[in-house]
Amino acid sequence: MTNFADRLFEAAHRKGASVCAGIDPRTNLIPDEFYARHDSTPDGIIAAVRDFCVEVIDLVAEFVPAIKPQAAFFEALGPSGFQALADVCAHARQHDLLVINDVKRGDIGSTSEAYAQSLFGETKIRDVIMPSLQSDAATINPYLGSDGVLPFKDRALANEGGLFILARTSNLSSSEFQLLDNNGTLVVDRVAKLIHQWGADCIGKAGYSAIGAVVGATHPDDAKRLRTLLPHTPFLVPGWGAQGGKAEAIKACFDTNGRGAIVNSSRGVMHAYAVGDLKHYGMERWKDAVREAAKNLRDDVSGLVGEPKAF
Amino acid sequence: MTNFADRLFEAAHRKGASVCAGIDPRTNLIPDEFYARHDSTPDGIIAAVRDFCVEVIDLVAEFVPAIKPQAAFFEALGPSGFQALADVCAHARQHDLLVINDVKRGDIGSTSEAYAQSLFGETKIRDVIMPSLQSDAATINPYLGSDGVLPFKDRALANEGGLFILARTSNLSSSEFQLLDNNGTLVVDRVAKLIHQWGADCIGKAGYSAIGAVVGATHPDDAKRLRTLLPHTPFLVPGWGAQGGKAEAIKACFDTNGRGAIVNSSRGVMHAYAVGDLKHYGMERWKDAVREAAKNLRDDVSGLVGEPKAF
Repeated sequence: MTNFADRLFEAAHRKGASVCAGIDPRTNLIPDEFYARHDSTPDGIIAAVRDFCVEVIDLVAEFVPAIKPQAAFFEALGPSGFQALADVCAHARQHDLLVINDVKRGDIGSTSEAYAQSLFGETKIRDVIMPSLQSDAATINPYLGSDGVLPFKDRALANEGGLFILARTSNLSSSEFQLLDNNGTLVVDRVAKLIHQWGADCIGKAGYSAIGAVVGATHPDDAKRLRTLLPHTPFLVPGWGAQGGKAEAIKACFDTNGRGAIVNSSRGVMHAYAVGDLKHYGMERWKDAVREAAKNLRDDVSGLVGEPKAF
Repeated sequence: MTNFADRLFEAAHRKGASVCAGIDPRTNLIPDEFYARHDSTPDGIIAAVRDFCVEVIDLVAEFVPAIKPQAAFFEALGPSGFQALADVCAHARQHDLLVINDVKRGDIGSTSEAYAQSLFGETKIRDVIMPSLQSDAATINPYLGSDGVLPFKDRALANEGGLFILARTSNLSSSEFQLLDNNGTLVVDRVAKLIHQWGADCIGKAGYSAIGAVVGATHPDDAKRLRTLLPHTPFLVPGWGAQGGKAEAIKACFDTNGRGAIVNSSRGVMHAYAVGDLKHYGMERWKDAVREAAKNLRDDVSGLVGEPKAF
């Protein structure tokens, strides 16, 4: 068994940067050619979205060690959308990409165990092996406390996987609860304390735990403080690019070996021809834009924090 | 447009109690006859689970105004499990039951909007109407704050639906974050304050908002305090039966018209032949046990807090 954090930073070393392409397919931004291949039915729309995601993965696989599908954009397509998510995860595995499923699940114990079955490994029901997303990691919401989180941990670890627990999310309103002060300690720092405890018994040879934290690139001060509180916790850092994440926050999350965090960009890569600096490519040259955006993500982040070293 | 809380308490009046049957299919507790009808394949297992849920709904529809499917137990069956959840929701609508989808979703704004599409109403993509679960209500996790919650509210209200925001969950570890003290106010009470604000502009003629709260029956003191803080908020109350919820907590959640809350029982109804007081029926007489458990749930709750009055 290899620790998830070791698998992550080893893969990051091979690609030259600890970065992640978010797979958040927005149907209004997908090139027409994908819809033209299929019927005008719900299944046709889903097939178009799946094909687009698959081609995006083919384009970015050279530059990133991992993808992060956002489950919501697949669920939004209706009940069959989940199968497209499973197809996208399977395709990423063919490129040896790690899959971080951004599902933000969390419930009471036995229900979290059911969610964990859908995310990691295989489950037998009456001797039938049921399919799962076979994630390498998933994002988890901590609001219900330890008994809602630990079933995910057990099942992730049994499959060489990991978790990223929501600590400080990248959105504006995240301060409403996450920054409440509890007798001199912020709620997010209480969450951090538990993340530290949950991850203490599964630290890999690179010094990082299989239990990580989500720390938005939009809050540099929090990123610095959380890095100090959580020396062994890998950070999943959303908010780069479209959400206005800051270089200062990114730097705070990494160690001097170029490890300790993975930076995600979603819209800025997969829809680069429609949003951000590479919009000038336009729909016609969407592939060039996606490829260049993934390359830029790799080069920008490794330029900022160094290439992840071998170990 | 009818307010969700009015729809809920009107339906509760018709059935004689404000109660809800949780649909949490546990594959190890489903009678063999359902598996015997289908192949030993993942699709066969899913079909068996769906058929069982459909028959449970047929049995309980006389006694309850609503069902609460737990998405995790469908997702645990793999990507096709979601279609079974959609089938179960559609079947409940044929019985005029309200469907409260227990999904505990929550994310940043545009992602919450995508989740909301999967839950409420219909979405057109390139003139194709995409299916959704057509929920009457859904459970939502507030950890990301207002901008993660409001997209769900907008879409729920546009479809005569509602939300139940996690406030005080029924599990033991829920105290880890929910009971942290913020300058004299508990975190859960801060959550309550926002729930009150989110729901202030959508109060129906019965005096309750379309925006509700999840308040576990396992914490009587919190239920009492939250009832005072949230006079217009309908409570979804899990923890009755299998989780050891207390009559005292249930009473605190209702008003003198028998309205203000809906009490859920999951295992205790749908798997009544395997857990709890009616275990003596056994697998052979599973239908009798499920029917009696649903009837008991109705009678016990209406005995405790009165039948919901007409309005």
